[in-house]
Amino acid sequence: MISPLAVPIATIFGSEFLGTMILIILGVGVVANNLLPKTKGHDNAPGSLQINWGWGFGVMFGVYGAYKTGGHLNPAVTIGLWVSGKELAPGIPATAANMATYIVAQFAGAFVGAVIAWLAYKQHYDEDCDPALKLGTFATGPEIRNPFWNTLTEVIGTWVLVIWVIISGYTEGTTIGPLGVALLIVAIGASLGGPTGYAINPARDLAPRLAHAVLPIKGKGGSDWGYAWVPIVGPMIGGVLAGLTYIIFW
Amino acid sequence: MISPLAVPIATIFGSEFLGTMILIILGVGVVANNLLPKTKGHDNAPGSLQINWGWGFGVMFGVYGAYKTGGHLNPAVTIGLWVSGKELAPGIPATAANMATYIVAQFAGAFVGAVIAWLAYKQHYDEDCDPALKLGTFATGPEIRNPFWNTLTEVIGTWVLVIWVIISGYTEGTTIGPLGVALLIVAIGASLGGPTGYAINPARDLAPRLAHAVLPIKGKGGSDWGYAWVPIVGPMIGGVLAGLTYIIFW
Amino acid sequence: MISPLAVPIATIFGSEFLGTMILIILGVGVVANNLLPKTKGHDNAPGSLQINWGWGFGVMFGVYGAYKTGGHLNPAVTIGLWVSGKELAPGIPATAANMATYIVAQFAGAFVGAVIAWLAYKQHYDEDCDPALKLGTFATGPEIRNPFWNTLTEVIGTWVLVIWVIISGYTEGTTIGPLGVALLIVAIGASLGGPTGYAINPARDLAPRLAHAVLPIKGKGGSDWGYAWVPIVGPMIGGVLAGLTYIIFW
Amino acid sequence: MISPLAVPIATIFGSEFLGTMILIILGVGVVANNLLPKTKGHDNAPGSLQINWGWGFGVMFGVYGAYKTGGHLNPAVTIGLWVSGKELAPGIPATAANMATYIVAQFAGAFVGAVIAWLAYKQHYDEDCDPALKLGTFATGPEIRNPFWNTLTEVIGTWVLVIWVIISGYTEGTTIGPLGVALLIVAIGASLGGPTGYAINPARDLAPRLAHAVLPIKGKGGSDWGYAWVPIVGPMIGGVLAGLTYIIFW
Repeated sequence: MISPLAVPIATIFGSEFLGTMILIILGVGVVANNLLPKTKGHDNAPGSLQINWGWGFGVMFGVYGAYKTGGHLNPAVTIGLWVSGKELAPGIPATAANMATYIVAQFAGAFVGAVIAWLAYKQHYDEDCDPALKLGTFATGPEIRNPFWNTLTEVIGTWVLVIWVIISGYTEGTTIGPLGVALLIVAIGASLGGPTGYAINPARDLAPRLAHAVLPIKGKGGSDWGYAWVPIVGPMIGGVLAGLTYIIFW
Repeated sequence: MISPLAVPIATIFGSEFLGTMILIILGVGVVANNLLPKTKGHDNAPGSLQINWGWGFGVMFGVYGAYKTGGHLNPAVTIGLWVSGKELAPGIPATAANMATYIVAQFAGAFVGAVIAWLAYKQHYDEDCDPALKLGTFATGPEIRNPFWNTLTEVIGTWVLVIWVIISGYTEGTTIGPLGVALLIVAIGASLGGPTGYAINPARDLAPRLAHAVLPIKGKGGSDWGYAWVPIVGPMIGGVLAGLTYIIFW
Repeated sequence: MISPLAVPIATIFGSEFLGTMILIILGVGVVANNLLPKTKGHDNAPGSLQINWGWGFGVMFGVYGAYKTGGHLNPAVTIGLWVSGKELAPGIPATAANMATYIVAQFAGAFVGAVIAWLAYKQHYDEDCDPALKLGTFATGPEIRNPFWNTLTEVIGTWVLVIWVIISGYTEGTTIGPLGVALLIVAIGASLGGPTGYAINPARDLAPRLAHAVLPIKGKGGSDWGYAWVPIVGPMIGGVLAGLTYIIFW
Repeated sequence: MISPLAVPIATIFGSEFLGTMILIILGVGVVANNLLPKTKGHDNAPGSLQINWGWGFGVMFGVYGAYKTGGHLNPAVTIGLWVSGKELAPGIPATAANMATYIVAQFAGAFVGAVIAWLAYKQHYDEDCDPALKLGTFATGPEIRNPFWNTLTEVIGTWVLVIWVIISGYTEGTTIGPLGVALLIVAIGASLGGPTGYAINPARDLAPRLAHAVLPIKGKGGSDWGYAWVPIVGPMIGGVLAGLTYIIFW
């Protein structure tokens, strides 16, 4: 059902921008707290479990921030919903203009979020450490580099995310709201994040990678652009597959 | 009350298949992330706490996926509900045909889920490591092998699970939905998983064990079929006992 | 308001018995999984954080089990509610007979729960280890032994628990149910459990201690009866203080 | 809308006092359990993840305690809501008298909470250890001392907190109540707590620091008053910015 009062493009942009910005502030922040020298998180070495929770909460509170647009924060979600034949959010049909606005806002918000997280940890980025760790706070990278298998892992992780976004509304009597997607992100990280660090979101990976490339980060190395297409293509395929499997099997 | 519009067998099969598939993707995945070489989870060694949460979230999001059938994902739950005299789900009476459909779908979905998790971690399975660790990502095994005590531990763990499934609906004003069973799985893992790794579900153990046996996993050892009956018999007894104790004591 | 249909004594007994039994199965179990040799929890050493969550979930699922009586599971809660002037649960006034039934059932259920947890970990209790660790799975003990300060710590922890039980119903629009008290137990364990291991419940400590004394546990030492009064007296004072502060300050 | 029955000043004071007291009992307690010698938390070294959860639950149960006033527990929240143009709580308009009452009560409650936490850990404070650890249980401190960057980090963390407090009510169908802010505190700690230990609340830092200064803590060092203004000024700026960005962008 299309709402009689369409949501303006500017409202869509602002909502997805701010939500994705919050997501990336918290997401890049939690990795910085684990990998960079002299932070309180680094000194205590809580490891990947804390990173998973940090990203989960990043999505959770980003979704709260983007309450006007259903909190996609992720082009793979936007595209998966379109393939599934649903509205993007109540009153926001999946038109080309609306989808483009969602996606541009997600990339822009992710970029600004990465800059803010960098500012919060500025002094720790200024410390000497392995340049790969500095890049690792912004962008994902594989443990064993192989385009096919890395992409497949991203496809599977994103499928789990997007199929849940599509179907979760059918479970009645559950009112945990954005906490649900927080826990799903933790789950995907714990269960499917081992090989590639679970980008499962093109905006989450590309925009902070771009921030890494352009920001004056002390002692940084390259931005690993050779891998950058994997966390774009894999999530896009995963999102489309989720939309298709929803239509066929559910 | 039996719904006037009975749920078709194919719908039951699809729902339990997809739900159990999601459960096992996340469950096998989280163990792979902990035990296999070179994963991000392995390098950070977060240990059994992460494994417990991974399985808990696997059940949670599997239940979301199987929303049409109440998300059993587990033959011990299906049988326990039958013993308790309840419907399997609203509109799905505990007939022989319905129960058989639930259980076959659970085993089939678990098998496919294990294959998908293996694909997600394919390159890490290809690495050299102790064959027991590779089996450990698929199937449970005891720390101190003894058929009687291992079975008893599985009986106790499954009883706690199934009695909650039967009675949880009587607690009013609680709307956390599938998060409840997620936390119960974490609890059983943390509290009763120490001796045997808490299968508490025949489909969760047997189907991935079969996948381990038939998949071309590099450097794999045996599938420990001598133990395979314990995580079938123990959970079945536990489920039946839960149904009986419900009738007698609650 | 007293319900016109009073809840029978046998129903009260059964509800609190089964709920406290579930609490102690999970609570003693999680400590056993951490302290005893050769368990999966021990090998991975997740430490006190896992113990806190295990007890939290023990209370959570015990409360689900005791849905007919409001899930006290703890004499300090029963007494604190009485002091506060409230009903013990809807339709269960704080009469002497009802209170005695609650408390006797709590001790009896805790004893049986400790026996079941021992059976689940039987082979691990049979292993050689420091007798103090075996006792530690059943009962609490202080890190620095001093009757006054240990009692005070238990008073403070129990006050936080019982005041929440009394006032939590006034926060509207919250429907997380027994998850709330689970998180409170984790919080008290993390924040106030450092000195004494937070019994904050006479039944939780005394009944498993008695089980330790009478069960044929291989290689066990003494049951530390000299300390046993502290986790009775401290929680009782804390519960009474919570009831009094509610009346005076809220 | 201003309620026709205004909430009395004494009620506001009592509510915020008790809520902030509970927050600080649990918050100072969890750090004490991690940093002080011979505690159960210290012996198991669960690290910063446990500290984050402890503070998150501290806020959660403090909010339950302050149910009559919306549970601010934090001058930056009170001021941010005033800037946003909203009521402080239903029926409590943002008048100068009401705001002053909130803030004075927050500081007073935080001071008393710190004293109670000190009593709970009295024997562990009496042990010999680095005086900086003893101070660290009461007040925050930076890992790399620099007034500008430390303040900026506190501004960013507080902005994330207060903007959520302002907007969270617009997400419909979510009834997790104070659990939401608990998870937000964990998130801010995990993601933005690395450089300064995330005071994000002037009362949380200044009042326990004052308690550290005046209590007869054995072997204590200085109270680091030179840093004390940062966790006041940073959160105040962050709260004001949240109110302003809400008005402008949401």
